[in-house]
Amino acid sequence: MDRITSRANPLLSHIRRLSSDAAYRRQSGQFVGDSPKLLREALQWGVEPVCVVCTEGVTLPTLPECVRVVCVPGDVMASVSPMKSPQGVLFTGRIPALTPPEKLTGRRYVALEGVQDPGNVGAVLRTLDAFDGDGLFLLPGCADPYSPKTLRSSMGALFRRPVWSCSASELCRLLQRSGLPLYGAALRLDTLDARTVDLTRAAVAIGSEGRGLSRELLALCDGTVRIPMSPRCESLNAAVAASVLLWEGYRGSDGRE
Amino acid sequence: MDRITSRANPLLSHIRRLSSDAAYRRQSGQFVGDSPKLLREALQWGVEPVCVVCTEGVTLPTLPECVRVVCVPGDVMASVSPMKSPQGVLFTGRIPALTPPEKLTGRRYVALEGVQDPGNVGAVLRTLDAFDGDGLFLLPGCADPYSPKTLRSSMGALFRRPVWSCSASELCRLLQRSGLPLYGAALRLDTLDARTVDLTRAAVAIGSEGRGLSRELLALCDGTVRIPMSPRCESLNAAVAASVLLWEGYRGSDGRE
Repeated sequence: MDRITSRANPLLSHIRRLSSDAAYRRQSGQFVGDSPKLLREALQWGVEPVCVVCTEGVTLPTLPECVRVVCVPGDVMASVSPMKSPQGVLFTGRIPALTPPEKLTGRRYVALEGVQDPGNVGAVLRTLDAFDGDGLFLLPGCADPYSPKTLRSSMGALFRRPVWSCSASELCRLLQRSGLPLYGAALRLDTLDARTVDLTRAAVAIGSEGRGLSRELLALCDGTVRIPMSPRCESLNAAVAASVLLWEGYRGSDGRE
Repeated sequence: MDRITSRANPLLSHIRRLSSDAAYRRQSGQFVGDSPKLLREALQWGVEPVCVVCTEGVTLPTLPECVRVVCVPGDVMASVSPMKSPQGVLFTGRIPALTPPEKLTGRRYVALEGVQDPGNVGAVLRTLDAFDGDGLFLLPGCADPYSPKTLRSSMGALFRRPVWSCSASELCRLLQRSGLPLYGAALRLDTLDARTVDLTRAAVAIGSEGRGLSRELLALCDGTVRIPMSPRCESLNAAVAASVLLWEGYRGSDGRE
């Protein structure tokens, strides 16, 4: 185990940049996880850390031989952790390819477009995992799935479910090849009540709360669905809308006990 | 319209404290809303502002005669707004009584216990409003519903739906008097799949993600319910769990189109 006491150490500078700079994450192909729980989740789901940084005295889980382990004093941890109250463990890991596969073999997918809030993207991924969704597509304008905040709010679901990045037209071609319909959460003349649509084998697209789905994406959807709600309300939070549609797909299929 | 240019003005100090200090909000009986949208929502739903602060040049909606209007330079707005990017309008309003009524006349309620995140409490209130829930109970340990962050994430639902603060035993007595069952979202031997329980006329209690519901509250529940999910997952985000249970109550009742 190495020991680092200088805040200016290059490894710590690297971790700080990984925390704050999405372009640097893409360029270096690495991310930062910032809690012991996330580290355990990563190990459990086969995501091998590159490097683990811990505060002196913290007990670490068993790590593969090749993982570099670095110990730092508490004030150095505070200088490098993206959290206000650092939890004693940080780690870096490799970002997998975000290119979608040639064909989809699962049944239920979510696509987000323009959802900028990392907490919302992480929450959708967590719920997708809970309700057995098979993968998340991030269309342009979404928060980086590998920002520390998204990772944290996904509660490790990012290690369990695939996340892909692509354009609206790439998504539609892939769904067509895979025989899956795409429903946009939007209002137009032909919009159907979400309860009347078979969501047990489908992809649903959800846009930002302010702007909704782009015209380009809407034109590519096989249909549009709405979640009925009180006329008092304009919209649901994007993560809540995704949760209700994921639940609708799950409650009618393999979720049955 | 008054004009204030000194950051040290007592009104601005009052607003800063209202933003940051829950005890001061309780003591003064006032809250701060921090966007033009929230101001419009307040006016639309009959919540009369005490005072409105705007940046020079901002157009305000029509306000009642008795509302004090104060105009400030942009840098002074930045010094007083709880938002990183102030939206040009702030207002103060009176906090209504948080004491529950003698009897409940609605059909569907949510109780939160120990949900500390203001974003989650606001999101639950927003979804409760969307799915025609009749009121939210905040049991001990929850975020202040009148913090700027809760208010913001409720998207004005706080002006449309009642929020009450009480103890677990007070809640249970009130529900009994009102003939409504209380279901706790929790796991025990007698726990039922949420899809098999009639939630169209019920209150559901949701605890914090870490600790769940207190023993005291669980002992007072008429039953417990679970949202089925993948065995990979430990739990849902509290706001997502509330959304699914609210949706289950709504989808089977007046939400039918």
